[in-house]
Amino acid sequence: MPIPANDPTRKTWLPVADNSDFPIQNIPFGVFLTRDDIITIGTRIGDYAIDLGALHQLGYFKDIPLTDDIFLQDTLNDFISDGQKTWRAVRNRISEIFEISNDELKNNKDHKDVVLFAMNEIEMQLPVQIGDYTDFYSSKEHATNVGSMFRDPENALLPNWLHLPVGYHGRSSTIIPSGTPIRRPVGQTIPKEAEKPVFGPSKLVDFELEMAFITTDANVLGEPIPVHEAEDYIFGLVLFNDWSARDIQKWEYVPLGPFLAKSFASTISPWIVTLDALEPFRVDSPSQEPEPLPYLQLNGKHSFDISLEVDLITNDESATTVTKSNFKYMYWTMAQQLAHHTINGCKINSGDMMGSGTISGPTPDSYGSMLELSWQGKNPVKLNDGSERRFVEDNDTVVLRGYCKNSSVRIGFGEAATKLLPALEFKN
Amino acid sequence: MPIPANDPTRKTWLPVADNSDFPIQNIPFGVFLTRDDIITIGTRIGDYAIDLGALHQLGYFKDIPLTDDIFLQDTLNDFISDGQKTWRAVRNRISEIFEISNDELKNNKDHKDVVLFAMNEIEMQLPVQIGDYTDFYSSKEHATNVGSMFRDPENALLPNWLHLPVGYHGRSSTIIPSGTPIRRPVGQTIPKEAEKPVFGPSKLVDFELEMAFITTDANVLGEPIPVHEAEDYIFGLVLFNDWSARDIQKWEYVPLGPFLAKSFASTISPWIVTLDALEPFRVDSPSQEPEPLPYLQLNGKHSFDISLEVDLITNDESATTVTKSNFKYMYWTMAQQLAHHTINGCKINSGDMMGSGTISGPTPDSYGSMLELSWQGKNPVKLNDGSERRFVEDNDTVVLRGYCKNSSVRIGFGEAATKLLPALEFKN
Repeated sequence: MPIPANDPTRKTWLPVADNSDFPIQNIPFGVFLTRDDIITIGTRIGDYAIDLGALHQLGYFKDIPLTDDIFLQDTLNDFISDGQKTWRAVRNRISEIFEISNDELKNNKDHKDVVLFAMNEIEMQLPVQIGDYTDFYSSKEHATNVGSMFRDPENALLPNWLHLPVGYHGRSSTIIPSGTPIRRPVGQTIPKEAEKPVFGPSKLVDFELEMAFITTDANVLGEPIPVHEAEDYIFGLVLFNDWSARDIQKWEYVPLGPFLAKSFASTISPWIVTLDALEPFRVDSPSQEPEPLPYLQLNGKHSFDISLEVDLITNDESATTVTKSNFKYMYWTMAQQLAHHTINGCKINSGDMMGSGTISGPTPDSYGSMLELSWQGKNPVKLNDGSERRFVEDNDTVVLRGYCKNSSVRIGFGEAATKLLPALEFKN
Repeated sequence: MPIPANDPTRKTWLPVADNSDFPIQNIPFGVFLTRDDIITIGTRIGDYAIDLGALHQLGYFKDIPLTDDIFLQDTLNDFISDGQKTWRAVRNRISEIFEISNDELKNNKDHKDVVLFAMNEIEMQLPVQIGDYTDFYSSKEHATNVGSMFRDPENALLPNWLHLPVGYHGRSSTIIPSGTPIRRPVGQTIPKEAEKPVFGPSKLVDFELEMAFITTDANVLGEPIPVHEAEDYIFGLVLFNDWSARDIQKWEYVPLGPFLAKSFASTISPWIVTLDALEPFRVDSPSQEPEPLPYLQLNGKHSFDISLEVDLITNDESATTVTKSNFKYMYWTMAQQLAHHTINGCKINSGDMMGSGTISGPTPDSYGSMLELSWQGKNPVKLNDGSERRFVEDNDTVVLRGYCKNSSVRIGFGEAATKLLPALEFKN
């Protein structure tokens, strides 16, 4: 069934630059603080943020069953909880309101005054209260690179990797929106061949280029989500930088997995781009050999062609694109991840988030972390200002970007940008 | 500074059995559903649940700064967020109201009718919305047992274990209150010497005897909690059964840690016993060698003498106490766990929960899991009905209990009881 909001020929009466991430075919969802210090749920077209709370109060959604305060909230959780049929109806209706030939809002200056905000007047917030956050490890190239570096290039993938989407539980409380600076984390690391750990700032802070999807309430405790239904429970996607302290991780992670090496911060882009908006960019899923167990089998186009790139901006504002990758490189699809996650009956709630794992492509210029790009620091990455990087340095800003593009439309994610500040000073 | 509610000579006008877990010196906090289907925050004395929402509406807390609806909520998060000074004032005031010589409520039948409920009239709920849940691995005996079984008895502890409280992020959405039955989880396991995994119900479902503490808002992103302040941010403790599927875990957990082997369910006791109530039961913390890094150093009594035991009840209602352990056996204290958790700046919120890890004592009858009690199934545990168990079987109920006791008072936790139902049937 076609989704009207995806019609590539549709134009809007709002100005939208040619290369904008946010044409009328996107219509992402987010939460923002207005110039009057009011928090509201909104969407974005071009460089305008649109207050959905105000639109709803003015009656623009009267034909859709919605509670009065559904958009007057500081998270999208309740709206996401309303389910796919409601998200789709709202997105289609927004598309209709802003369609170029529709005068109902276009010609109503009073309404426009309370509905439209220039992007530079507002402050984006975390779009959801993330109940549980899971991170997968689903790029074969990334897992192979890491396995080659730390174990054995001949047996880089562990035995379970090709049979299930390896994943682990992460920390929700430190997921932050783009623009929030972070501090270099402090902790225990073990110097080479030392017997005892030392204390201090991590020396190997890294980004991880990921995407993450946000779910709706999907099941009750004890019941799995079948793989062929899984996508119905995915609201949308964001860019995700899973900040990592490689030296802290190395010392702490055996046998229970990464902990403080990850939980100091993870950055998401603030606009959730719906799975509906990404429909035109479905591509074949990778062929999987050996064949997965039946509960993970799903034919068809369940991967998405999303171009990804990372800029590293130094303190003097010189930017270098250090990698270009693509979400379609993932070996395990989101549907498989969600089916696997729930095969044990694990309950999935509205606002849960699942990261893809670092998305590395097949070539060295498409790797998704400094660890891989500099190959453990052996091949420093050259920056445009003449300096070089093995890992991320103090006062560097890391910017993730992502977009889909075909001959008629470009759907983008904006950015997930984070500045790494120096560590707090400790008296120890 | 003495806490009046802890006065061991204090008696209450409510009937309390001699061996009750809930004398007037306990005053735990929980959330319950009343006979009128109203959810409220309450406490318990003897076999009475006390509606704090009703008490507050009747003016009994008028001298304490509290918002009107602080107890008329379905979780304790906001109350916990009010901080230690408020919890202490409320607990002391409850103790005063129910003190034997205090007539204000005792002689007011109308008030008693809306405030007091027999325990069998109410239904206990999950006491907090758990934002993030972390599980530690802080019993030296347990880590040694597991390391001996799966690695090398001569080097059972991994190199990091004595230097930091090893921990990992867990799944919050499947933490359930005592009384909620669960299903045997289904998933991938690898048969011995097989090359490919198989699909089906876990054959090695186990309990883990743990305790967990609940925190208040403690810090801002990027700032650690010093170890000597950490206890101020701990509201209280519950019993915690960290259900585990050993065969699923074995196949999935390398390299990122346990995932679906844990996330099918974890059970807590519904009454949070405050750290204040446990004050009389502080004991010396274990001596730690090698000396931890300075950020983990804390002298004094930061362990707690809490007797723990686990009953396994078969489907014919025959009960066997399969282990007796004690919370004081933990090598790493709660203060050290919280200081370590935040050394990287990880933000701690009200309602976060941190599990101790399986609490095994020094002798084989004090081990905290069937894995250890049956030593990987080699020494089946004999039950009182003549059957034996290597792991938990379908329709078994596992009951955790815990209490502190000295010559004048007994403070208990009630129980965390869970029945394991058979796996869902799958067509695969």
